[in-house]
Amino acid sequence: MAMQKVNTLSPNSSGKDVNPDLDIERKNPSFNVERLTNILDGGAENTRIRRAVDTWLQKDPEFSTERQYFLTQNERYENAIRKSIYLAKKMDEMGWAEDGPERKYCHRALSCNLAFNVHKVFLTSILGLGTDEQIAKWVPLAKKFYIAGTYAQTELGHGTYLRGLETTATFDVATQEFILNTPSISAMKWWPGDLGRTATHAVVFAQLYLKDKCYGMHPFMLQIRSLRDHSPMPGITVGDIGPKMSFENVDNGFLIMKNVRVPRENMLSRFSQVLPDGQYRKQGAEKINYLTMMVVRTQILQAEVVPLLMKACTIAIRYSAVRRQSELKPGDPESKILDYQTQQQKLLPQLATAYAFFFVGEYLLEIFNKGYRETKEGIFDMLPELHALTSGIKVIATDYSSLGAEVCRKACGGHGYSLLSGLPFLCTRVLASCTYEGENTVLLLQTARFLIKCLGAATSGKPLPPSVAYLSSRSFGKCEAKEKGDFLNPDVYMDAYRQRSFRLLRTAASKLQMLIQSGIAQYDAWNQCSVQLAQAAMAHSHYIVVEKFVEALARFGQEPAIQRILKHLCDLFALHGIHSDVGGFMQEGYLSTDQIAMVTESYLDLLPVIRRDAVPLVDAFDFSDANLNSALGCYDGRAYERLYEWAKKSPTNQQGNHVFKTYLKPLFQNALSKL
Amino acid sequence: MAMQKVNTLSPNSSGKDVNPDLDIERKNPSFNVERLTNILDGGAENTRIRRAVDTWLQKDPEFSTERQYFLTQNERYENAIRKSIYLAKKMDEMGWAEDGPERKYCHRALSCNLAFNVHKVFLTSILGLGTDEQIAKWVPLAKKFYIAGTYAQTELGHGTYLRGLETTATFDVATQEFILNTPSISAMKWWPGDLGRTATHAVVFAQLYLKDKCYGMHPFMLQIRSLRDHSPMPGITVGDIGPKMSFENVDNGFLIMKNVRVPRENMLSRFSQVLPDGQYRKQGAEKINYLTMMVVRTQILQAEVVPLLMKACTIAIRYSAVRRQSELKPGDPESKILDYQTQQQKLLPQLATAYAFFFVGEYLLEIFNKGYRETKEGIFDMLPELHALTSGIKVIATDYSSLGAEVCRKACGGHGYSLLSGLPFLCTRVLASCTYEGENTVLLLQTARFLIKCLGAATSGKPLPPSVAYLSSRSFGKCEAKEKGDFLNPDVYMDAYRQRSFRLLRTAASKLQMLIQSGIAQYDAWNQCSVQLAQAAMAHSHYIVVEKFVEALARFGQEPAIQRILKHLCDLFALHGIHSDVGGFMQEGYLSTDQIAMVTESYLDLLPVIRRDAVPLVDAFDFSDANLNSALGCYDGRAYERLYEWAKKSPTNQQGNHVFKTYLKPLFQNALSKL
Repeated sequence: MAMQKVNTLSPNSSGKDVNPDLDIERKNPSFNVERLTNILDGGAENTRIRRAVDTWLQKDPEFSTERQYFLTQNERYENAIRKSIYLAKKMDEMGWAEDGPERKYCHRALSCNLAFNVHKVFLTSILGLGTDEQIAKWVPLAKKFYIAGTYAQTELGHGTYLRGLETTATFDVATQEFILNTPSISAMKWWPGDLGRTATHAVVFAQLYLKDKCYGMHPFMLQIRSLRDHSPMPGITVGDIGPKMSFENVDNGFLIMKNVRVPRENMLSRFSQVLPDGQYRKQGAEKINYLTMMVVRTQILQAEVVPLLMKACTIAIRYSAVRRQSELKPGDPESKILDYQTQQQKLLPQLATAYAFFFVGEYLLEIFNKGYRETKEGIFDMLPELHALTSGIKVIATDYSSLGAEVCRKACGGHGYSLLSGLPFLCTRVLASCTYEGENTVLLLQTARFLIKCLGAATSGKPLPPSVAYLSSRSFGKCEAKEKGDFLNPDVYMDAYRQRSFRLLRTAASKLQMLIQSGIAQYDAWNQCSVQLAQAAMAHSHYIVVEKFVEALARFGQEPAIQRILKHLCDLFALHGIHSDVGGFMQEGYLSTDQIAMVTESYLDLLPVIRRDAVPLVDAFDFSDANLNSALGCYDGRAYERLYEWAKKSPTNQQGNHVFKTYLKPLFQNALSKL
Repeated sequence: MAMQKVNTLSPNSSGKDVNPDLDIERKNPSFNVERLTNILDGGAENTRIRRAVDTWLQKDPEFSTERQYFLTQNERYENAIRKSIYLAKKMDEMGWAEDGPERKYCHRALSCNLAFNVHKVFLTSILGLGTDEQIAKWVPLAKKFYIAGTYAQTELGHGTYLRGLETTATFDVATQEFILNTPSISAMKWWPGDLGRTATHAVVFAQLYLKDKCYGMHPFMLQIRSLRDHSPMPGITVGDIGPKMSFENVDNGFLIMKNVRVPRENMLSRFSQVLPDGQYRKQGAEKINYLTMMVVRTQILQAEVVPLLMKACTIAIRYSAVRRQSELKPGDPESKILDYQTQQQKLLPQLATAYAFFFVGEYLLEIFNKGYRETKEGIFDMLPELHALTSGIKVIATDYSSLGAEVCRKACGGHGYSLLSGLPFLCTRVLASCTYEGENTVLLLQTARFLIKCLGAATSGKPLPPSVAYLSSRSFGKCEAKEKGDFLNPDVYMDAYRQRSFRLLRTAASKLQMLIQSGIAQYDAWNQCSVQLAQAAMAHSHYIVVEKFVEALARFGQEPAIQRILKHLCDLFALHGIHSDVGGFMQEGYLSTDQIAMVTESYLDLLPVIRRDAVPLVDAFDFSDANLNSALGCYDGRAYERLYEWAKKSPTNQQGNHVFKTYLKPLFQNALSKL
């Protein structure tokens, strides 16, 4: 069945039932909203397909998320399993290509309500780490869901620091088996998704022991539950880790192994093999594997983190255009809260941030592809830079998106505290991204390590990778801006960001060197500098985001209206960053007190400019009402009506009279004679 | 029954089952932990009573909160009602005085699991706003829970801006009744606690209309549900507003009134009366009422907000002393994460903040009491200052506590995302305080209005209230610190805070004046300065917190160990504030680049000093394990064991085999022949 051309889903025409306060915001956008949507989708054809997929999903009641905020964790899990299996069948019926855009858009629209998320990582890990025979054996089963898998790496006592993992796999030459064990409570696998109540198989990471010698972490394929009755296999203890802030659709689990034996061929052996006599043999170029981790970080940004911030902005900005509170001008009707400078200053920088991360995500994908091509050809030069970039940008994107979503939530006042606003869900979900796929502080310090090396290389006159080329500068002097308008010049603010990053890094590096020279051990000196090193890595990542936003503007030279509004957002993102860390830019006199005053004025001046297009700018994200699942943020702006309608459906209004009869009536009847 | 002297609850002796990593942290505190606990309790006698109450509560299984994180909203509500009624009965049996400390400690320990919270506000509002006859009629009924009340002020479309409330009460001379109406959807009462599923009565705020003239907001006593069967009274639509981020124990509700008639005597008439002929008469000094709102804000800080931050610190710091991750020194065992500078820099400033807010809370209570005495004597001079102080400190305390609790949560990595850590509960709960009892931005701007007035008064040489006396200064010159040690001098950093606040305020005031002189209307000029005004109000409030912490130190002159550790915390709080807003202190050259480097070093130097006492400092808060309700933060440090034990009890491990049989088995059986 071919997809018909359906555009009706897109909320791109002013309907008659739209709240007039929201309708008027859409009357005179300064740019073509549809065109910006196409840019965000990567082309008009993608927009068309995405909308068609959304329409298709929304026609099917099975995919409704209407009662999402009313469900228990168990109900969310059961629904996720049911929906996932149903969706897989339906997508097959549609004949959609395995890597086609339709499947991608389905998953993006429904990801918070589907299961088998780590099953996909399980599949990828077999493809990446398995031999051809192993792939031939396991992948077809996993693709058809004849087995369900998980990726069991993290332990109760060990997360980002992989070398510390405790699970052991000891080779028994006599039986040609590995014996897997969980040697302590902190060694149990903890957190893997799909493990708690679903998986039959797991790729388990364990320290490989051959004749009492440890060879480090290796992956083993392990059956953990019976395919017949789902009971744990011998030696296995497995279960769910319980309630979390979000991700109720995922059954994160624990796993304890006691003398669990798996045949020799179950070690995934693309890169290292254990021979029948217990000898260890390394093979192949493992480095390509590092890229997998990096690409996962990039995909998470684009498919999960940035959309969460975009949704939060959509809800908060639409609501701020219909919420009226207090009088701006005495005697006038109450004002839209979006007209207050304080509200603009909360929301519009978040909007600019969402656009900034969109463009840096595109950049990451681009250089990742380049790195992938080179690595395949055996050129590994880009890997350290790529690792530093993806780590640093993962941190700033997840950190700022978490803070930003929370700013949006809080800016909606009391109603932002209601789950029905959709905002608490977005906030608690995005928060997790600061921890998973590498804890943010740990990643920042890895980026810092790379930067320190580059600074050292620069000092000895060696060439630097492009993203850090500015570290070769001797000095940045002082900013030469004379008036507030100068701060709308990207060269001016990019220089300022480069200067801050350079200076923070140089300060940390000098301190590090000084401590080492004073006789403090390297590791201790590093620890004593780590707050400043992390700060420098953050400043560098911030600079990259600003630079990539500026570079993206050049693409729209033929579209002045689009370019103009994106330029405003880029300026706002950059100036908001300066305004929020004035000290970072003032030190060594780079910016003067007068120049800071100019930044503040330039920054505040941008707010009312962008405010005019605020609603069109979130409309351009083109989330359907079903995607947003928010009583406050719907396209029609009927926030109060929807809050009331949704609240009436809450289970809290279906508790019946039981609490009254049991607990309250015996007390209240005492008042009957008195009132 | 007298309370026996029970101290066993206090976790103040090293038990043999304590995790050695935590035990060792308690071996050499630099101060007497018990003494600090007594200080926080306001005396050793209070500590004794509090512990006895805790023991009493924990012996009774009815008060167990063990399954709290597993319950649905409906279950949480039902439990809250049951526990509240049971507790009231038990407390009566104990013969505890109505305003005695035992009842206070009971409520503090259980507040998150009790109902009838707004019932108390209902009672207070009758006492504050009712005539003697009204008090005599309603208060006895309410005290015995023969009726359950709510305080219905906030509307769906109106929160902090009270003048915008839409509900109407029109007097009908013919029947001597008020007719209450909800004229639009945005006018329905929305959010009041105890309204959704409990209250039989409400104090409803409505615009009073007499012969078509509006007299503003007035309170009306209204029966909303039958005492016999709990059905809504005629003309009433009432229900629950549904799921929220937290506060599942509270049934926040909505209320729609359609021509609901109440007799004339149901207007609470202590301060204004409607005569039988429809004439309006004001009476009495209403100003004392403003104080009620202020005291509520102070009480919330002390009883709710600051303890939430203290609990988050307790959990995160204890966990950081038992969590080991990565090697600091190569070859050594993995290090406690509390030994990493980055972890210290996350947690220790939050600990200092908790202590800072404790002392500023004491100060607020003290000047509030003074203000109350004066107001009762008809002296209203202190009211504007009190309002500005309580508003500003409410904002900084709720804002910093929210951010701080989240820092603590995130610092616990993945396990901080599990509800079983207790941290998500603390975080989502404290977030609400930024919005309730006056939205933070609105409150800041009210403080700013007071500060602008004071600055004007200072310019014309008028005397200023004590908390803003520094605004009389002409200029602050430059900071004279010469070395990093100088920044441990409270005079140095207090001056810096005064300078920042003064400068921000003066800048905003100049801009405001300039805009008005340029012909921009006053209200518009105010809006265009509001970001900077809010910033100035925040800086002023921050200064007050620092100053009050410094002043509190003087009390402990006879206890050098206590004074020393509190001084370290005060220094850390002050220097962390400078470190986090370097720009605010550098402008106009107040602090130089070199001085900022000194601040940074002084600040970082404090971290390992306080780290040594970090665990004793959270032990001093003396929360029992039941109070913390955290698998990570218990006194014995057995975090992993407890996480595992608690997870096993989760309903997610009691879902049975149904999901497997229905959805998974049909797929998995296809693999049976292949594996």
